[in-house]
Amino acid sequence: MIFSKLYSLVLLGSVATSSYVPYHASELVERDIDNTGKAADRPLIHATPDSGWMNDPNGLWYDAKEKLYHLYYQYNPNDMVWGFPLCWGHATSEDLMLWKNHGVAISPARNDSGVYSGSAVIDYNNTSGFFDDSVDPRQRVVAIWTYNTPESETQYLSYSTDGGYTFQEYEHNPVVEFNSTQFRDPKVIWHEETQKWIMTVALCQQYSVFIYSSENLKDWTLESKFTDSGLLGFQYEAPGLAKIPVTKATNNNYTLEDNSYDVKNNDTEYMWVLFLAINPGGPQGGSFNQYFIGDFNGTTFTPFTHQTRMLDFGKDFYAFQGFFNSPDDSSYLGIAWTSNWQYSAYVPTYPWRSSMSLPRRFTIQQYSPTPESVQLNLNSVPVLNLAGDDKPSESRYALSNKALNSTANLTIPIEGTPTGTFEFTVTFACNSTTVVNTQSADLNFFLKGSKDQTEYLRLGHNAQAAAFFIDRGNTKVEFVHSNPFFTNRLSVNGEPWSQDGSYSIYKVQGIVDVNILELFFNEGSMASTNTFFLSPGNFIGNIEISSSVDGVYSILDFDLKELDVVDSKVTVETCGPSE
Amino acid sequence: MIFSKLYSLVLLGSVATSSYVPYHASELVERDIDNTGKAADRPLIHATPDSGWMNDPNGLWYDAKEKLYHLYYQYNPNDMVWGFPLCWGHATSEDLMLWKNHGVAISPARNDSGVYSGSAVIDYNNTSGFFDDSVDPRQRVVAIWTYNTPESETQYLSYSTDGGYTFQEYEHNPVVEFNSTQFRDPKVIWHEETQKWIMTVALCQQYSVFIYSSENLKDWTLESKFTDSGLLGFQYEAPGLAKIPVTKATNNNYTLEDNSYDVKNNDTEYMWVLFLAINPGGPQGGSFNQYFIGDFNGTTFTPFTHQTRMLDFGKDFYAFQGFFNSPDDSSYLGIAWTSNWQYSAYVPTYPWRSSMSLPRRFTIQQYSPTPESVQLNLNSVPVLNLAGDDKPSESRYALSNKALNSTANLTIPIEGTPTGTFEFTVTFACNSTTVVNTQSADLNFFLKGSKDQTEYLRLGHNAQAAAFFIDRGNTKVEFVHSNPFFTNRLSVNGEPWSQDGSYSIYKVQGIVDVNILELFFNEGSMASTNTFFLSPGNFIGNIEISSSVDGVYSILDFDLKELDVVDSKVTVETCGPSE
Repeated sequence: MIFSKLYSLVLLGSVATSSYVPYHASELVERDIDNTGKAADRPLIHATPDSGWMNDPNGLWYDAKEKLYHLYYQYNPNDMVWGFPLCWGHATSEDLMLWKNHGVAISPARNDSGVYSGSAVIDYNNTSGFFDDSVDPRQRVVAIWTYNTPESETQYLSYSTDGGYTFQEYEHNPVVEFNSTQFRDPKVIWHEETQKWIMTVALCQQYSVFIYSSENLKDWTLESKFTDSGLLGFQYEAPGLAKIPVTKATNNNYTLEDNSYDVKNNDTEYMWVLFLAINPGGPQGGSFNQYFIGDFNGTTFTPFTHQTRMLDFGKDFYAFQGFFNSPDDSSYLGIAWTSNWQYSAYVPTYPWRSSMSLPRRFTIQQYSPTPESVQLNLNSVPVLNLAGDDKPSESRYALSNKALNSTANLTIPIEGTPTGTFEFTVTFACNSTTVVNTQSADLNFFLKGSKDQTEYLRLGHNAQAAAFFIDRGNTKVEFVHSNPFFTNRLSVNGEPWSQDGSYSIYKVQGIVDVNILELFFNEGSMASTNTFFLSPGNFIGNIEISSSVDGVYSILDFDLKELDVVDSKVTVETCGPSE
Repeated sequence: MIFSKLYSLVLLGSVATSSYVPYHASELVERDIDNTGKAADRPLIHATPDSGWMNDPNGLWYDAKEKLYHLYYQYNPNDMVWGFPLCWGHATSEDLMLWKNHGVAISPARNDSGVYSGSAVIDYNNTSGFFDDSVDPRQRVVAIWTYNTPESETQYLSYSTDGGYTFQEYEHNPVVEFNSTQFRDPKVIWHEETQKWIMTVALCQQYSVFIYSSENLKDWTLESKFTDSGLLGFQYEAPGLAKIPVTKATNNNYTLEDNSYDVKNNDTEYMWVLFLAINPGGPQGGSFNQYFIGDFNGTTFTPFTHQTRMLDFGKDFYAFQGFFNSPDDSSYLGIAWTSNWQYSAYVPTYPWRSSMSLPRRFTIQQYSPTPESVQLNLNSVPVLNLAGDDKPSESRYALSNKALNSTANLTIPIEGTPTGTFEFTVTFACNSTTVVNTQSADLNFFLKGSKDQTEYLRLGHNAQAAAFFIDRGNTKVEFVHSNPFFTNRLSVNGEPWSQDGSYSIYKVQGIVDVNILELFFNEGSMASTNTFFLSPGNFIGNIEISSSVDGVYSILDFDLKELDVVDSKVTVETCGPSE
């Protein structure tokens, strides 16, 4: 086995490359000092609004002509909290890490109303009739969104003839209505098999996803309803159907035929997934995203089993939406909002609130949550394009093959001025034969502030609990202590990535971006996304690795890449009816 | 409307009755001082082992002859952590509040093995042939449990001819086997309609509940399997079928015919529920109990919908089991383990660890989680028998009709020496028209330590989040700060109990017992059970009620009853093979 080297562990030491460039502190200060002189620490490789309020991702599409990713989002440029009039904000990215803001893309007709969440499609064949030959087929963008007024929520179309920067409203809106004030979040896809557009939209407080079909995006036929499934919470939001490629984990020797339950009517290359968010009332408190795996025949979604599956185990991953079109059809690309309605209006950032997650690539994989079971699972890996000339510079720290005991810690320093933005990957082994019931066996990663080490994130693994843990409560930031919903500790249970005799091997990838922590376990079979807040400017300065027990945990490989990014220019926007 | 009095609020002041008796501190000290001189604060009205380790409730039954409730439980009397040999401990209670421990009821035959979880039935008609006329039919107790060895888990029978105090093993055990080391937790019920015994037992790591039938408890036929439903976590445990009365909430004007989804094949008086625990891998971390509502025809359980329902929203409510037989057939009576496998082995109690929940009475009720939906729900109310000559004495504090603002707090003192054990009930109103987006509107109950007020529980409600919150992190107890799984904050979303114009009315019942907090919202439509730990002897001494905003929250009624209980005598037991 490859892990026989465990028995002769040596510390190889840390290696720092020469590509490290100090953080551009002056630019941040110029950009983000608020009235009180407090530096507002903005994530560098996550989409944020320049100013104002952001929530759900909307209208995700990829422009194959310009090779550009488009992100719209729920946007209130007039305030740092949610409020009317609510618009679609707009940002673009070439690499899904650095985003350029373009301000407001769609505004509501009334100041007491909102352009609520929705999606975008590329109408290549001009089924809608909105386009002529002057618009490249790859840029025939139609946005489908909910027009929220005090009287109703109905589904509207807008289309763009300039590649997604400005939109015109369809003159015969709404295209779908249901006499409800709680009927929203249309996600439209193209169903190749039936050559029709398919819309999923939530009748939120009746726990029902309506599935419509259309040939022209204007005339819609109700085909079926998906109801009363999974966790209900207070309301369903942001449903989305997706046909997702099936891939094989590298630690997996199963074939699809081994699957212990009945997988009906699907080929082995794709399966259908229904994403579904609930808010409030998620099991961890507030906002929550679940999903179902099954089959979709063009009219009806039929889940293979009646499992309830968690899309992410953290508290800050909501209203997930997938891209329409993507240059890589080997996976399904999507983004979630990185906050939680329980506390999103109070997080200590300025002059904006909230961000998007890193885009993730999803595939369906079989995995083995227990030694006796093989299940289907949505695997996700973050998009983190570190290669290439125009990509962020990085510094690197690495170590390998280090056995831990209770009297010696490893400390990995980040040299120079930390940027707050880095990726780390770790592979560790846990020797279960040395664990005793009376002693809690833990592996800890203390990610400590550079200016004040008494502020830190604690991450790690516990052998008895068979779980990864996250503790974001060790900070002096008042919000963290006073907000009654900002849970300090989250955890994720998981089977080992592999086993070598008594050694269980686990893999973790973490991306820290100023105030966002995204963790991916065992190459993406589980993920946990959580925001965190240390004092302003107190970016993570070193990582201390320790264990409270002897001879249980060993670090097989640890690698850290720090990122340095010069952000795009900030503009100020307004939203509301045209004057 | 009855809440028009809201507009002329007056403080009626607190009222203390004369029945208050100081806490018997000397008795506690004599009983529970450990080697270091630290007082170990034992819950007074919850079942705990005298010493050693407790987990799942087992074999719950009611002796109608002696009018006595029997509780067995997973018990390691030899250590304060789980370990082999594992036994069934035994306790009895006349009132479901005060428990008398009887030590070990069933021991395993081998020191490397365990008498794992299971249930008990009363074999009135001697279908098993274990009894003769010398045993009153109401006391013909047969225990069905899992014999765990390193080689396998199989289902065993033991029977008692002395009313449940001692047991003999059936000579032809096992009665059910499946060639698995992960096949456990048999719960047996009597199915009146088919005149058969029904057993549910979990093939844990294959996410399957096997349903067997029998005419004599000895010979079992596999009838069906219930698989891959709800949240899976790492493994299924403690399944249980129950036929539960349907009742009507007092704020409910619906009839069953209004039900918006398809309720098949059931009468209106009872519905079937399948309880199912998962551990680890619960959505809040670790241990979790879910349930399904549906129909059972003697062979197959069919849920009405594919909802995943949470039995409790706290972190410490696991392995729920219902009683066989109960003097009150208008509800279903059951108990859960009040801890979480993530941290149960490290909680700071001595010389025992863990307790049971208060027994709860369950009924199926319709409730309205949103203005547009009527759902079925398992309603639970705690058994808290405060009336009667032999019941705990109490003192009472009450106030009513008090509007809150941000500059004035209400403080409710507990006079004398607090016992740590009390019930409070509160009805409050939230005026949604005075809530603004930029200001977090909260109602807080700070339950402060009597000796050190810097230690406290914070409970409350937040208008924007539409949620009740719990914060158990404000303590000096080292375990709370160092254990990475002891989540500080839990929350429960819920609709108002009733509405009076812009006033939303909510009801909360809380039972605090030294280190256990059980909360019931809106007369039991939701519950949250959590342990908490303040410094030894620092029992709750006063309750401070406050709001951070003006004119949003009003206390309509607040009532506190403190309990004083003289505990039963402690004995020391051992567990293991007979010599």
